[in-house]
Amino acid sequence: MLIFSSMKPENSKFTRIALIAKPGDAGLVDILQLIQKFLQTRQLKVVLDTNAAELLGTAEPVPVEDLSKKCDLAIVVGGDGTLLSAARELVLNDIPLVGVNLGRLGFLVDISPKQALQSLEAILDGAYLEEQRFLLEARIGSGKPTLAFNEVTLHKWNIARMIEFETRVNGQLVNSQRSDGIIVSTPTGSTAYALSGGGPLLEPTLDAIALVPICPHTLSNRPIVVHGDSEITICVCGRTEHRNVRVTCDGQESLEMAAAEKLHIKKHAQPARLFHPVDHDHFQLLRAKLGWGGHPK
Amino acid sequence: MLIFSSMKPENSKFTRIALIAKPGDAGLVDILQLIQKFLQTRQLKVVLDTNAAELLGTAEPVPVEDLSKKCDLAIVVGGDGTLLSAARELVLNDIPLVGVNLGRLGFLVDISPKQALQSLEAILDGAYLEEQRFLLEARIGSGKPTLAFNEVTLHKWNIARMIEFETRVNGQLVNSQRSDGIIVSTPTGSTAYALSGGGPLLEPTLDAIALVPICPHTLSNRPIVVHGDSEITICVCGRTEHRNVRVTCDGQESLEMAAAEKLHIKKHAQPARLFHPVDHDHFQLLRAKLGWGGHPK
Amino acid sequence: MLIFSSMKPENSKFTRIALIAKPGDAGLVDILQLIQKFLQTRQLKVVLDTNAAELLGTAEPVPVEDLSKKCDLAIVVGGDGTLLSAARELVLNDIPLVGVNLGRLGFLVDISPKQALQSLEAILDGAYLEEQRFLLEARIGSGKPTLAFNEVTLHKWNIARMIEFETRVNGQLVNSQRSDGIIVSTPTGSTAYALSGGGPLLEPTLDAIALVPICPHTLSNRPIVVHGDSEITICVCGRTEHRNVRVTCDGQESLEMAAAEKLHIKKHAQPARLFHPVDHDHFQLLRAKLGWGGHPK
Amino acid sequence: MLIFSSMKPENSKFTRIALIAKPGDAGLVDILQLIQKFLQTRQLKVVLDTNAAELLGTAEPVPVEDLSKKCDLAIVVGGDGTLLSAARELVLNDIPLVGVNLGRLGFLVDISPKQALQSLEAILDGAYLEEQRFLLEARIGSGKPTLAFNEVTLHKWNIARMIEFETRVNGQLVNSQRSDGIIVSTPTGSTAYALSGGGPLLEPTLDAIALVPICPHTLSNRPIVVHGDSEITICVCGRTEHRNVRVTCDGQESLEMAAAEKLHIKKHAQPARLFHPVDHDHFQLLRAKLGWGGHPK
Repeated sequence: MLIFSSMKPENSKFTRIALIAKPGDAGLVDILQLIQKFLQTRQLKVVLDTNAAELLGTAEPVPVEDLSKKCDLAIVVGGDGTLLSAARELVLNDIPLVGVNLGRLGFLVDISPKQALQSLEAILDGAYLEEQRFLLEARIGSGKPTLAFNEVTLHKWNIARMIEFETRVNGQLVNSQRSDGIIVSTPTGSTAYALSGGGPLLEPTLDAIALVPICPHTLSNRPIVVHGDSEITICVCGRTEHRNVRVTCDGQESLEMAAAEKLHIKKHAQPARLFHPVDHDHFQLLRAKLGWGGHPK
Repeated sequence: MLIFSSMKPENSKFTRIALIAKPGDAGLVDILQLIQKFLQTRQLKVVLDTNAAELLGTAEPVPVEDLSKKCDLAIVVGGDGTLLSAARELVLNDIPLVGVNLGRLGFLVDISPKQALQSLEAILDGAYLEEQRFLLEARIGSGKPTLAFNEVTLHKWNIARMIEFETRVNGQLVNSQRSDGIIVSTPTGSTAYALSGGGPLLEPTLDAIALVPICPHTLSNRPIVVHGDSEITICVCGRTEHRNVRVTCDGQESLEMAAAEKLHIKKHAQPARLFHPVDHDHFQLLRAKLGWGGHPK
Repeated sequence: MLIFSSMKPENSKFTRIALIAKPGDAGLVDILQLIQKFLQTRQLKVVLDTNAAELLGTAEPVPVEDLSKKCDLAIVVGGDGTLLSAARELVLNDIPLVGVNLGRLGFLVDISPKQALQSLEAILDGAYLEEQRFLLEARIGSGKPTLAFNEVTLHKWNIARMIEFETRVNGQLVNSQRSDGIIVSTPTGSTAYALSGGGPLLEPTLDAIALVPICPHTLSNRPIVVHGDSEITICVCGRTEHRNVRVTCDGQESLEMAAAEKLHIKKHAQPARLFHPVDHDHFQLLRAKLGWGGHPK
Repeated sequence: MLIFSSMKPENSKFTRIALIAKPGDAGLVDILQLIQKFLQTRQLKVVLDTNAAELLGTAEPVPVEDLSKKCDLAIVVGGDGTLLSAARELVLNDIPLVGVNLGRLGFLVDISPKQALQSLEAILDGAYLEEQRFLLEARIGSGKPTLAFNEVTLHKWNIARMIEFETRVNGQLVNSQRSDGIIVSTPTGSTAYALSGGGPLLEPTLDAIALVPICPHTLSNRPIVVHGDSEITICVCGRTEHRNVRVTCDGQESLEMAAAEKLHIKKHAQPARLFHPVDHDHFQLLRAKLGWGGHPK
């Protein structure tokens, strides 16, 4: 769960590289071509996801759900949202991810297009910082789990009024609250929606989950940080009907709740692996993204 | 670091019991007498701290700094503040603490006077929940460390203007900030001053430290939660002079900083041991103290 | 707009009294009967709204929209929500409102059932405090205005992602924000949803409107308080589609937005008139409802 | 109290111009010389405050407290702090102020050095926006009032623990609170310390005062906005001693409280007059200073 750097002198480790692109953004063509060419020059097999294949006009796209079996490393080109979706798929086969942004620094896509080739070269040569970050899985009733890398949010749906629900941690009642919902966030998600909701920043490798109420009726309902291996259960109650509640993973996957069903959230067994350039510094990223001061003059 | 319950059938373990009282509160006499008598009836040796001795009019007070060598268990009667000071002394010899309040539930003194004898009987019989909670130690320059159970606060002193300082975690710069100060809080302290400053609630046994800025000039300077084994260094900088800064532990111990000195904070090696009745429930305590709703009707 | 007390020695002023009840709560029958009898004893004409009529089993209910023409004073029995709806109807003919709660103090229904008869007697005798509080009117495109006593909220609808919109005050751009929405609140609404969203408390008769962002993406997007006579325009923009946005008044009336339509909000010309017992004290209400300390011991 | 633009075709109105400079900043010499020369070319009398005189090496400095009798208009060159002190002096004789910054946009010094001559020319020609902003006066016991343009803060002093005090508005108790202090802010001050304390942004010409608690012990103690003509009284109480409390105006003037003395705060009778270029837009200033988004792409 800790950040560690693992230098490997031989560069033979990664031979099949997936290239994953943000959907529907023609502005990516140049950087994708550059990376593709660079990888081909290194005589590596390049596998393209549907978006990358479409933009590059190359023959064989591989659906993202099959990618993890066909690559050793994935390069994601886009925004943090693109990396979030890729991570949820690639975590299944333990494939490391590298994020290249489109000019605007992301919390996850931390390599700028200008430095992409240089950074990728170093990483393929074995000089990188590996970070393991956990995901959450959300399960409604006895359904199948859905993964979330940032957060699982239970929120009101098709209703203007607050909803009412009970939160339990390892079976113990935390509280019954009326609010617009609750954000159950990983450390990765602590810079995303949870931050907008007033949650704290969590160090990326902290083994902890933040529970952040959204506009709670009770003013002392503050964000709570619990152990990373907690099992969280949320149960709609009071006058709130299940059809007025929805569960969303990473703001991307939406799940409905049938009457009497509960939401179960826990850490996913397999962490995502993020590769960063060796000079990666999470606090520097925070300073840059959140506009904090650095060294005083 | 986890909560575990350790039942011991034989009650021979604790034979010398310290009784520690809130200073200067004559209202404690009754409950102290009751507990003293109860312990004597069980033929246990009772050791009194200065305050308890004064209130009970008994001969031999033991200064709190010597208590830890003369007891196996300490019963603290008073408020959370009384337990904070006792813990900082008794942690040195690994003495467990039990907290009895004066009618107003505390986060640490969780046994009501009405239930005191019943709860103490069960605990002495070996039925208790033991919780290990870490303390911080604050060191200025190369000085000797001062312990804090709730929080170490660096704050402005004798000045109306904001102060400026740099915070580092394990040597890495977090940020340079202008604010009224910063609260470095244990999970125990997350329900105290850090909460007033906008910090999150941390589960008591979480291995994490919260850094909570006090009225920061930069609005995106939010509370940060870092690993419990982080070494935090705070360095006064910019136009702020060291004499306009002070460091306070648990709002009780105040430390000055000389020019060029830095503040170093890290987890104290030895955790405090808190004993609770077996039905102790931290979230119930939060609900009661913070006025949260419990089960909806 | 200021609070003023207007004592009238003769009690001839209010001769037709409307009795308005919370819908579907059989627990109201006793207090309604008590008030009805009391009013009849004073030989006043009692007009019942549909809910009160149903609960009292009396012949002639008057729909709430016709009530204002048939009464000089309205007694609302229920919670704050009941008074909010009544106020939106009765403001049209300048009818004063008195709020009786059901045992749980409200911000608007401030008379307890136990003191109801005594308080009503004094009010009918002319001893009351009159408070004028403004309402907002929300208009979508060139549609007809909907009233709000607490707040007009523009919020995401049927979508998990943040929405994007521009806010203008008197035509001047305030900002373009990504968030879950925005609460445009009257002083009356400042103790309601706006408070949950982090907004400030406004004195009830302050001539000001609060704009409170809901979970804004930009951390420096803080609540803004503008002049009460400001015209606020909110325009959905960026990638947000109008069908993913809805406007809600007092959490009770929901309005859809068609493409290209803007939301216009301004103060309603006619204020609501609230009558309170002469010892009414708004800060005392805040202390009681928000659990603030009063005088220290 | 409202913003109004007052164009005057004849430029004869301002004939004696004060030049006020930030103390001890040699970097101001160039811009000061430029402005001085520009004013002399227009054959206007230039009066220098002590700082400006020192930097320009000119003979006759006028102490800031005498300036208001010797000028019709004051140009303040420096940061917001420089303008705050100048305003507190010049408000006495109703002298309008123009603020020129040193390259870093201020909330009050809104003219950049690059546009200084052009803006000043327009203003002297009568094309400006005049804004009247109120100040507060703080009086301790029966002492003489001290002015504050941003805020009056009552805060702990020489003590690590929270202080306890009662706040009254027009004699009515608001609450008794334990906290680090309270910020009583003008609309002008709402972008300063009050904002760091969690207070709302107030439109500059709103006739309202914000009361912002600093790290309050009670979590529901939220900022309160009251009428601009309120008289606020703060009384130290409980176990807090007066020597552990201090009152500070604009972070610049510090006042002690003797035992039994109360702090009285109310609006100063005479507003400050700020002149802005005619294209001045307060929300644009907020967007620039707080990093808000403007128009979406």
